[in-house]
Amino acid sequence: MSELRKDPVVDRWVIIAAERGRTPTDYQAPQPTPAGAACPLCEGNEQMTPGEIWALRPEGTSADSPGWQVRVVPNKYPALRVEGETNRRGIGSFDMMNGIGAHEVAIESPDHYWQMGDGPPEKIQEVLLSYRSRLSDLYRDERLRYCVIFRNYGAEAGATISHPHSQIMAIPVVPSRVKSKLITARDYYRRKERCIFCDVIDQELAQEERIVFTNDQFVAMTPFASRFPFELAIYPREHSHDFAHVDEKGLAALADVLHRCLANLRASVGSPAYNFVLNVAPNTVPRPGRPEYWQTLGLDYHWHIEILPRLTGVTGFEWGTGFYVNPVAPEEAAEFLRGRAHQQADSVAADRSQ
Amino acid sequence: MSELRKDPVVDRWVIIAAERGRTPTDYQAPQPTPAGAACPLCEGNEQMTPGEIWALRPEGTSADSPGWQVRVVPNKYPALRVEGETNRRGIGSFDMMNGIGAHEVAIESPDHYWQMGDGPPEKIQEVLLSYRSRLSDLYRDERLRYCVIFRNYGAEAGATISHPHSQIMAIPVVPSRVKSKLITARDYYRRKERCIFCDVIDQELAQEERIVFTNDQFVAMTPFASRFPFELAIYPREHSHDFAHVDEKGLAALADVLHRCLANLRASVGSPAYNFVLNVAPNTVPRPGRPEYWQTLGLDYHWHIEILPRLTGVTGFEWGTGFYVNPVAPEEAAEFLRGRAHQQADSVAADRSQ
Repeated sequence: MSELRKDPVVDRWVIIAAERGRTPTDYQAPQPTPAGAACPLCEGNEQMTPGEIWALRPEGTSADSPGWQVRVVPNKYPALRVEGETNRRGIGSFDMMNGIGAHEVAIESPDHYWQMGDGPPEKIQEVLLSYRSRLSDLYRDERLRYCVIFRNYGAEAGATISHPHSQIMAIPVVPSRVKSKLITARDYYRRKERCIFCDVIDQELAQEERIVFTNDQFVAMTPFASRFPFELAIYPREHSHDFAHVDEKGLAALADVLHRCLANLRASVGSPAYNFVLNVAPNTVPRPGRPEYWQTLGLDYHWHIEILPRLTGVTGFEWGTGFYVNPVAPEEAAEFLRGRAHQQADSVAADRSQ
Repeated sequence: MSELRKDPVVDRWVIIAAERGRTPTDYQAPQPTPAGAACPLCEGNEQMTPGEIWALRPEGTSADSPGWQVRVVPNKYPALRVEGETNRRGIGSFDMMNGIGAHEVAIESPDHYWQMGDGPPEKIQEVLLSYRSRLSDLYRDERLRYCVIFRNYGAEAGATISHPHSQIMAIPVVPSRVKSKLITARDYYRRKERCIFCDVIDQELAQEERIVFTNDQFVAMTPFASRFPFELAIYPREHSHDFAHVDEKGLAALADVLHRCLANLRASVGSPAYNFVLNVAPNTVPRPGRPEYWQTLGLDYHWHIEILPRLTGVTGFEWGTGFYVNPVAPEEAAEFLRGRAHQQADSVAADRSQ
């Protein structure tokens, strides 16, 4: 069983997942893994993964057989496991608990070489459907306080398997980084009776210079304080704390924006490695005995997606300060990502008026 | 002039240093840079850098000429500049200020291929001397609230120039990440009248399993909640908040531990990229008009060095939660780093008994 350990000075948990099977001498930069017989995520190799938890597949086909479009399975080398108790305890001044939680893999396509930036939006929508379904299901387990869905694309982003996949992790605590965002959102709401994210979105739409794409339901922008070159954030235009509430039309609109962002990121800077993070509110199901704080925290949150291209390394300055140095102004990145450098100005205007 | 921008939700500043000269289409992974005529940090090319601020060089040699052992110059493409005012201001709900601060480069050796892990300790001591000297000098400027000294070794750690060098950055705010460590240290001290770091060091020395090297003045360990495989932390055994107070004997003892850590890191996992961060207290010089909080915060801090090998990528999980997944238990990493895998047990025992 893996262990969660808390730093004695900084409010930060670390999952020590030594059982994931690598030995200390086994450190090499990950190489692209081949398609076919050796790839545990390729179609036809369903027996190489633990049994599927969820799948989008034609009626009449059976679980763990070929024919699927998206397939969610437990991670074969999970950093966290669902079985057991958290068993919080200390060793002297150190805090630790068991690594309870869920660690799943969403296999996004049977095609080893598919990339989300390839689209079409209808295919991306299938992947988003798997996210929504797993998130709703995992939040039924009241031990799981927070769920993060992410994809690592490319070795620099930490990907160790080339086959297109996302990861779904649900953990037994709300991370302090998330908590501080939640508290900021709640305090702002109490003071202004408005969502802080909604206000930022309105200001960005008014200023225009960091807007990359919009459609009737979503807006993609390069954040004002972008940490990384070509960093992107995608928000629903209407306030919503819960990704599980997005309907089919919303998933289609989100797939449209995601497709355009990732395709233009590739056109702008040549298929960079990136991390994709779906940020949602914690598991806010009210339950007896929990203080009101925990029951309500998160309802004034606004879910969003971050896309963090890994074009620059994280340096000692970032590790030492939590500050970031970004050599590309987000306004300039937005100009590129809108496609002005690649398309005629009038087709961009058409994009932006949608 | 670069800009500091604050995220509207997260307490995090970003330095937008667009003038550093890269264009958005200019993103390639950094390649090793050659020695000789093309390397601005090599001996003989002193005219390729801004004029030296500090140097360790034989008496009688003149500034910006060959013959030096260590040479500190302003960064040619600084993320921050000393001239001007911070001029804090807002745009709607966004906060920003000018990029005031210092950004210097400590060229550690005239030899393009020297690595700190090569030693000898006497050479490393020369580099540490440059750190101490620059830190003391920069803290004379009361606008500079925090100074971080770091080195990025290898492209995965963000290094763009191969010639051995460290960077020294002094910034006009105390980062919230640092502030929260300072507040934890102060609160702990008030409650217990002991330093939290001293207590952690005592516990680690008693438990032994994460201790890598010690000598009479310093202790190197793999932290209990290590974020990364083979992460190392080095602390002075005696309480000290200020690296500038370390005397010559202390620098020699620190150089000894650093040399052994870096040499054994290389022997254990083959010269990985790493970030090295010197964590010191903020600029605590008391001055009239400043609230007591700022005058005292930091005196109960305990300076330390972090060495963060970049063997695993930072994934979407880390970006989304601030949690880390570490596939190597620090106890196991310490075992390797002590050299048990590479040396006879009795020589290790000799190391540890020092």
